[in-house]
Amino acid sequence: MDYQQLLENIYQSIMPYAGDGKQADYIPELAKVNPDQFGMYIHSIYGETASVGDADTRFSIQSISKVFALALCLSIKGDELWKRVGREPSGTTFNSLIQLEVEHGIPRNPFINAGAIVMADILLSHFEQPERDFLSFVRAIAEDETIDYNRDVANSERENGYLNAAIANLLKYHGTIENDIESVLHFYFMMCSIEMNCRELAFAFLAFANHRRRFDYAGITLTSSQVKRINAIMQTCGFYDEAGEFAYFVGLPGKSGVGGGIVAIHPLQYSVAVWSPRLNPKGNSVMGMKALELLTTETKESIF
Amino acid sequence: MDYQQLLENIYQSIMPYAGDGKQADYIPELAKVNPDQFGMYIHSIYGETASVGDADTRFSIQSISKVFALALCLSIKGDELWKRVGREPSGTTFNSLIQLEVEHGIPRNPFINAGAIVMADILLSHFEQPERDFLSFVRAIAEDETIDYNRDVANSERENGYLNAAIANLLKYHGTIENDIESVLHFYFMMCSIEMNCRELAFAFLAFANHRRRFDYAGITLTSSQVKRINAIMQTCGFYDEAGEFAYFVGLPGKSGVGGGIVAIHPLQYSVAVWSPRLNPKGNSVMGMKALELLTTETKESIF
Amino acid sequence: MDYQQLLENIYQSIMPYAGDGKQADYIPELAKVNPDQFGMYIHSIYGETASVGDADTRFSIQSISKVFALALCLSIKGDELWKRVGREPSGTTFNSLIQLEVEHGIPRNPFINAGAIVMADILLSHFEQPERDFLSFVRAIAEDETIDYNRDVANSERENGYLNAAIANLLKYHGTIENDIESVLHFYFMMCSIEMNCRELAFAFLAFANHRRRFDYAGITLTSSQVKRINAIMQTCGFYDEAGEFAYFVGLPGKSGVGGGIVAIHPLQYSVAVWSPRLNPKGNSVMGMKALELLTTETKESIF
Amino acid sequence: MDYQQLLENIYQSIMPYAGDGKQADYIPELAKVNPDQFGMYIHSIYGETASVGDADTRFSIQSISKVFALALCLSIKGDELWKRVGREPSGTTFNSLIQLEVEHGIPRNPFINAGAIVMADILLSHFEQPERDFLSFVRAIAEDETIDYNRDVANSERENGYLNAAIANLLKYHGTIENDIESVLHFYFMMCSIEMNCRELAFAFLAFANHRRRFDYAGITLTSSQVKRINAIMQTCGFYDEAGEFAYFVGLPGKSGVGGGIVAIHPLQYSVAVWSPRLNPKGNSVMGMKALELLTTETKESIF
Repeated sequence: MDYQQLLENIYQSIMPYAGDGKQADYIPELAKVNPDQFGMYIHSIYGETASVGDADTRFSIQSISKVFALALCLSIKGDELWKRVGREPSGTTFNSLIQLEVEHGIPRNPFINAGAIVMADILLSHFEQPERDFLSFVRAIAEDETIDYNRDVANSERENGYLNAAIANLLKYHGTIENDIESVLHFYFMMCSIEMNCRELAFAFLAFANHRRRFDYAGITLTSSQVKRINAIMQTCGFYDEAGEFAYFVGLPGKSGVGGGIVAIHPLQYSVAVWSPRLNPKGNSVMGMKALELLTTETKESIF
Repeated sequence: MDYQQLLENIYQSIMPYAGDGKQADYIPELAKVNPDQFGMYIHSIYGETASVGDADTRFSIQSISKVFALALCLSIKGDELWKRVGREPSGTTFNSLIQLEVEHGIPRNPFINAGAIVMADILLSHFEQPERDFLSFVRAIAEDETIDYNRDVANSERENGYLNAAIANLLKYHGTIENDIESVLHFYFMMCSIEMNCRELAFAFLAFANHRRRFDYAGITLTSSQVKRINAIMQTCGFYDEAGEFAYFVGLPGKSGVGGGIVAIHPLQYSVAVWSPRLNPKGNSVMGMKALELLTTETKESIF
Repeated sequence: MDYQQLLENIYQSIMPYAGDGKQADYIPELAKVNPDQFGMYIHSIYGETASVGDADTRFSIQSISKVFALALCLSIKGDELWKRVGREPSGTTFNSLIQLEVEHGIPRNPFINAGAIVMADILLSHFEQPERDFLSFVRAIAEDETIDYNRDVANSERENGYLNAAIANLLKYHGTIENDIESVLHFYFMMCSIEMNCRELAFAFLAFANHRRRFDYAGITLTSSQVKRINAIMQTCGFYDEAGEFAYFVGLPGKSGVGGGIVAIHPLQYSVAVWSPRLNPKGNSVMGMKALELLTTETKESIF
Repeated sequence: MDYQQLLENIYQSIMPYAGDGKQADYIPELAKVNPDQFGMYIHSIYGETASVGDADTRFSIQSISKVFALALCLSIKGDELWKRVGREPSGTTFNSLIQLEVEHGIPRNPFINAGAIVMADILLSHFEQPERDFLSFVRAIAEDETIDYNRDVANSERENGYLNAAIANLLKYHGTIENDIESVLHFYFMMCSIEMNCRELAFAFLAFANHRRRFDYAGITLTSSQVKRINAIMQTCGFYDEAGEFAYFVGLPGKSGVGGGIVAIHPLQYSVAVWSPRLNPKGNSVMGMKALELLTTETKESIF
């Protein structure tokens, strides 16, 4: 497969969508980003790589960090984790976020905000220095020591994060989180603020695509079966209420972030990262979604 | 892969679960079935087969028929279908069935009852003789002319089918169904009443597993891409509010029925059918779920 | 109090609202009514009366019939009634009608459709000739033997009554109704189809306003305490999700119907009926609501 | 009417319920109160008074303070108030508190917690010294300068008030509150912490019962019509999801608090306060509810 040619074809084909959608502007730091950027990077498990556009520009990975958090929590807690968070898709947002996200204090899955806040709580209780240890893991899996938090973004999100604060209070009310609310929210927003580029993300997610390889980064280990189960959760819950759409049009496990990034994996084949800040109404990158749809259409290969 | 040995090992391993769960008894006809049966049949796309237990005993396929209905509707309507039914998972049943199933008259996906009732309406409008034509398709895809409806089961379901009648009335109120309610419900229950055995189901679902093969049965044709998208919907929506569980533990697209049957496919590898009437609280076969979990654990292969 | 002068002043004051709102047109029979009519009739417990406009024109009383049904059910069942229907207001329609109306099969109060369908079932089980006996009661309490059902309206409603049929099926599913669904719906729509004018309604509701008078009509008896409790339910549940508005602006127990009629009572003072077919978005008569607000504003007297 | 005899009879009659229910214990300060107390005080608009039991023992008025807050807000904002809070009953708690309490950021009525938090925000914005001015009003309407906040109770509630903090964050997210969350919550809990006895409460609520008297306390004025509308809201929304029950069995406007107090008024007749810490599952005083039911049963007079 000539991945470079493939990506260049895709790049051409999605140009008509370049102005569609609107970047996230609910925090000033994200609104500052030039919305008219697009990057894509693919990395096969055999080492082939290809890229187009702004694949080396770092951006806020936001909810993509939830996959890293899940890897840590599953490594630490094993199946005990599922006592504190579910693994069912959340369905459409036909009701309030709050209602859907917290039922009797058990968030529906680890990839909605409520679930990730519970994971933040678990990591806070487990690590002596959670910020350091989470970052170490991300740097190790991406093999890049320059990856870092963006504290301005994290602080800016906390200041306007009333909805997440409501969720955290509700979880505390139900007894699902142990640590004090401010600490949990701070750490949650720190994880979201990590900045990576498409190349780094594609490299990091090879660890999930190639589940036959030993998973051991900064002391965090997972079995092949656990990695595959994280992939399953990406498949069913990775795109909020567009999980069905993504499965239908793309057909790969993946995870999106409100910064405009999306990662996806084809198990035992490749990992791929795309980034473009303009989002559709569901909060997923317009060009990113389109590029991934074309990828599996052109290759005629998805997990289905 | 020695499938026969594999199935025999699985059969041994699941014996401890033989008495767990309770068969569906809300209609007398289903309650008459001997609950202590188990069958399993696997069929690779290369023609290998293996079976254990009561793999030749026919049972009521119930909701598994929804996959056949979707194949017909997608063939007939193409992407127009998605104007009348969604393709998102329905999430947990945290609210009433009705609430979750019908939002502004658009059922969330084709595999919940509301969605299948809409498909019944579409087929009623399209075919001059819907019962004959639906059965012809099923017989063709399974290559067995003796497959048939069980009218006693269908009538018995209609008599007690108040919840489905409520859904049909609600759909009619919203203008989502065109035909009269009784005709739609009758045809819906007829489709559910079809009886097949594990061997026949595994054979029929090869058409979905092997999406590179031409899909053309009794005049119903689908492209490879359409078949893969049906597989995607099985993955995200095939198990009501256990879709996440099934993805996590089994990792294959599939569909269950309240008669105790489950079919699953490993794209480009095999199709598999299991049957055992005792159900877990979510309405899925206890031994069937366990058998499929063991299948992908033992083979160390799932779509993830 | 010069009631005649009062009503004439009100009549003048509400003229500006004469074209506001839209009459119910979901059934052809109701849509045929000339929407530009208004009638009002007040009847004090001391025998004083006054009227303006079309107070002698009969119209479809629709949901006002639910008060009569409650009187019969409370007389027949006593406090046993509350095992099958609640007596709490239904709150706003923030969710689907269905969801709000039926929780575990127990409708929230007797004045929402689900509650009235349960009352229809109770009356069907109790009377040998329910249609005859219900009508006898209404004729007796209104002292007018010419009051009757309008079968065209009833049949027309049944034909389009998919939402009510959905509710009835859901109640049957939960086991809350005993009789067959068609009989229950037919009788429910018959009760709604009764035609009365403002004068007759005001006279009939004197029996509720003057709870110290013996309540005994066509063999249906209630204690003073039971009559007052029906008044309490009118207060809290008589106007769907405008119950709070009506309490706030009018301050009297009352009940509205989609035919444009509203009755209200000032306990131990008077009963009053208004009618005008144009409805506000909540389904209550625009001019009727305004007229009653002016009535308690002008008299400076409400129950509060 | 011999009120003293009446109250003594009631006192006798409710003795069998003395041990029923459980006092609020979610904050240590409230749990310290001796649960086996009962007081009742009635005050007619003509100056007659009567009392039984612990009518002079002060207790935490909790949600009864919401009526005082509403009086202030309506005086300050007039009908503008209704842009920020509704006036419809909240129905049963069939869903989560959060869901019911906040729809698009507009609480359903001023007497649920969300509504009272919005009122706290309004008062914070309006007054330079809100704590001083709120207390001045309460002292003036009760004609007692020794009434005061209990800061221990207020602080204790804030520390465990995760649910109210969730609500406040959600309101802030929707832009319904202007001030910072901690200030709003602190002031909200301060208002709830005020301590009064039955005598003082009955005296204070005379101002609502006798709406023909000029309402002017510490500079807070209301028209007769505004007072009656506050009474209407007490009627429809004063008892959470027991509003219908209270209307049915007692038939008076009123307001309860989780400290075990209940006030009720018979417009133009009397005000009455009862107190007993043991609560029913809905959070209303068991003996208090029973005593008020007997009061209107014995006098054969309610607003209906």
